[in-house]
Amino acid sequence: MTHTRIKDLLNSTDFGKEFIAKGWIRTFRNNQFLAINDGSCLGNLQVVIGLNVFDEKVIKKLHTGASVSVKGTLIESQGKGQRVELKAVELEVLGESDPDKFPLQPKKHSLEFLREIAHLRFRTNTFNAIFKVRNALAFAVHQFFNERGFVYIHTPIITGSDAEGAGEMFQVTNLDLDSLPRNEAGKIDYKEDFFGKETNLTVSGQLEGELAAMALGNIYTFGPTFRAENSNTTRHLAEFWMIEPEMAFYDIHDNMDLAEELLKYVIRQALDRCPDEIEFLRNRLLEEDKQKPQADRSEMDLVEKLKFILENDFERVTYTEAVDILKRSKPNQKKQFKYLVDDWGIDLQSEHERYLVEKHFKKPVILIDYPADIKAFYMRQNEVDENGRKTVAAMDILFPGIGEIVGGSQREERYDVLTQRMAEMNIPTKEMEWFLDTRRFGTAPHAGFGLGFERLVLFVTGMGNIRDVIPFPRYPNNAEF
Amino acid sequence: MTHTRIKDLLNSTDFGKEFIAKGWIRTFRNNQFLAINDGSCLGNLQVVIGLNVFDEKVIKKLHTGASVSVKGTLIESQGKGQRVELKAVELEVLGESDPDKFPLQPKKHSLEFLREIAHLRFRTNTFNAIFKVRNALAFAVHQFFNERGFVYIHTPIITGSDAEGAGEMFQVTNLDLDSLPRNEAGKIDYKEDFFGKETNLTVSGQLEGELAAMALGNIYTFGPTFRAENSNTTRHLAEFWMIEPEMAFYDIHDNMDLAEELLKYVIRQALDRCPDEIEFLRNRLLEEDKQKPQADRSEMDLVEKLKFILENDFERVTYTEAVDILKRSKPNQKKQFKYLVDDWGIDLQSEHERYLVEKHFKKPVILIDYPADIKAFYMRQNEVDENGRKTVAAMDILFPGIGEIVGGSQREERYDVLTQRMAEMNIPTKEMEWFLDTRRFGTAPHAGFGLGFERLVLFVTGMGNIRDVIPFPRYPNNAEF
Repeated sequence: MTHTRIKDLLNSTDFGKEFIAKGWIRTFRNNQFLAINDGSCLGNLQVVIGLNVFDEKVIKKLHTGASVSVKGTLIESQGKGQRVELKAVELEVLGESDPDKFPLQPKKHSLEFLREIAHLRFRTNTFNAIFKVRNALAFAVHQFFNERGFVYIHTPIITGSDAEGAGEMFQVTNLDLDSLPRNEAGKIDYKEDFFGKETNLTVSGQLEGELAAMALGNIYTFGPTFRAENSNTTRHLAEFWMIEPEMAFYDIHDNMDLAEELLKYVIRQALDRCPDEIEFLRNRLLEEDKQKPQADRSEMDLVEKLKFILENDFERVTYTEAVDILKRSKPNQKKQFKYLVDDWGIDLQSEHERYLVEKHFKKPVILIDYPADIKAFYMRQNEVDENGRKTVAAMDILFPGIGEIVGGSQREERYDVLTQRMAEMNIPTKEMEWFLDTRRFGTAPHAGFGLGFERLVLFVTGMGNIRDVIPFPRYPNNAEF
Repeated sequence: MTHTRIKDLLNSTDFGKEFIAKGWIRTFRNNQFLAINDGSCLGNLQVVIGLNVFDEKVIKKLHTGASVSVKGTLIESQGKGQRVELKAVELEVLGESDPDKFPLQPKKHSLEFLREIAHLRFRTNTFNAIFKVRNALAFAVHQFFNERGFVYIHTPIITGSDAEGAGEMFQVTNLDLDSLPRNEAGKIDYKEDFFGKETNLTVSGQLEGELAAMALGNIYTFGPTFRAENSNTTRHLAEFWMIEPEMAFYDIHDNMDLAEELLKYVIRQALDRCPDEIEFLRNRLLEEDKQKPQADRSEMDLVEKLKFILENDFERVTYTEAVDILKRSKPNQKKQFKYLVDDWGIDLQSEHERYLVEKHFKKPVILIDYPADIKAFYMRQNEVDENGRKTVAAMDILFPGIGEIVGGSQREERYDVLTQRMAEMNIPTKEMEWFLDTRRFGTAPHAGFGLGFERLVLFVTGMGNIRDVIPFPRYPNNAEF
């Protein structure tokens, strides 16, 4: 007789039938009621233990965190709080848990404390819910692209190209740092390293993704990317997962359409597949909000915030229009912004992005046509406008609370324009000939974007710290587990 | 008017209707027939160009590799080889391709040559087919596990734990190798490194996966793993993707059932979703085989080989039984094996594994209960047998042609047995306390396995070299693109 998942038992109506359940004890009340959880859902199974039925030695081992196997009869529950319960006939403790040592007790622990014991925090309802939502979102991403004929491309993690300029990189080496090989000039001899040259961890799969798109048409990546930046914030990780679709024959408008469709699709999937988890997280946030002064509380609860995305067309605004709106805005006039908006050309800060989304448009916003000088070399140059302003066909999607969730662009497909821009920005072309080949041979308009997966999970779970939405976060001075 | 994918045009019956197609020129025959491909499928769209309809300047740009946009009327084809064609009304060359410089010509290129230009090989039928099959397999993996309630867990890529012992690791550092910080003892001071300690690229997500399984029940990973081993073979990569499910309350038999079900599921999905691609790869192999002496040709073609997996129950055999069979086998008696099988306890070689699968059982084989001394510390120890032999509940799944495709085990859940084994194998427990916590608090029987994704793609595509089934392979002295 095999065991049945608690999720299935909680939905079962096979009353009077015998089942085996296995799981971990959450609570043991009145020497009679065990609540056990096997991770299959947030709900616990109530196991009823008749008084004096089981050996005292077994009963003494029933502590929070211990694992048990129970054979019993499924019955309709007389008590409040659950529909069914299992009346135990056989009871075995598979693994004990010393109550004086087990760090998780049936009380509320702080997220900071749980981060210290990230190897055990999976056993809490909060992290069970977060990682279920994370799973639903990841699967929804694959489903979305597969339904549309996109090809999932695994771009390389270790890369020899260091010209992407997206940020500080981690070096990957196989050399013995205690006795580094040197060449005649006294420089480190990377010919001796594993790959015969200096290598780093990728900061983006975009450039390699473009290579695939210029043959397979529509592709996407979903893999880890890295930044060696000393950012100790609630928004940054040194290791995070990115989704980067790239589409041949797409312009910036097709690109915006796809990104909006993707975001709505995956959020809808999360709501559909994880109603209990999202309800739990919604209540968690409401509780958290109660501890805050009125002014700091969220205007929308979690479900309202998700529906806000689903039910609104994203507002498409040029950077130039946005700067005008911000200049004239109250917080700018009253000097309430930390960074005042004065001149065209500034980089927008999170406070500006949130003002546009939450106060001005009250909708998700897509900003396009950014100044060329604050964007990457590979973005397509627009016609110079009547004021002589140089912009590129970039797009950033802004969400409430979180600011930028997607960044993308139409790519510069014109060889001459691209190489001239690279020269202006001092980007060496020597190591990038493979990239330039896409513009040499059968170049075509194309576009793509990047969606930081943890930013998405942060938004959908309503959590406040990105370190809580990835199982084992990596940040300065932390690579535990 | 937006463009239509060639895959949809080839399946369309909207004759007489106008469409726009975009793609890259594969061939241009008789100044009249363009074959264009947009990556959406293997098939090309035939575009008919009336004589003297278009400007000579445009016609002169119609070379292999150039990208074009064609507006035209869909008509039933009179010619052989295609059902439909597009009669061009408008024709624009989006990106030229200089025939003297473009490396891909409409002829057969060697796989070795294509590996040198991996950024362009996506544009060949062979690699189009391979990466479509790879995509179908990846999606099938996610689908399989999501249908069964497994949670996708992203285990860390950068890891501070170096005790897993699964192979040579790459070091990850942010230190300036030209001026390494030293402590008082003259040692490199890793407190100055980004993570405050020495870090490496992961060799497996299993241990972290176990942490999640001991709370969420059933989980799986699907991420990149790394080996800094100087293996220049057709079977090894320095960077490859692994799928590692881990299940609480599973024993070795449940584990075997799941692995067999997974392999059959994903192969069936590939056959269902990529019939054209697999047919193409089957024919490619048949052609390749014709060049070989009779004795070296495959007994089964690609589709037969895939159906061989689907239609057979995997034979479950103990290591001890397998060694007996091998000892008595003809190639062993006649000393045809490179490594002769004599004593119990030896590690089996690929030739032995293939003999068992291809000659003896003529079925996929699962070998279980391996000698403890040739397996990892975390595998569950079986009862010592009547001959005093120590084995562990390990399992390897063997496939024709390829040998081991899956390796797994029931895990040692008993704290005392595990720590004693770690001491015997000189594995320091100090850095592994987090792992041991799973055995301290509510330990439970559990099991899992690893499936090398590129090995799977190699098998399903019938390719001979693992460097051809990942977009940008990493191996000694190669980290191009």
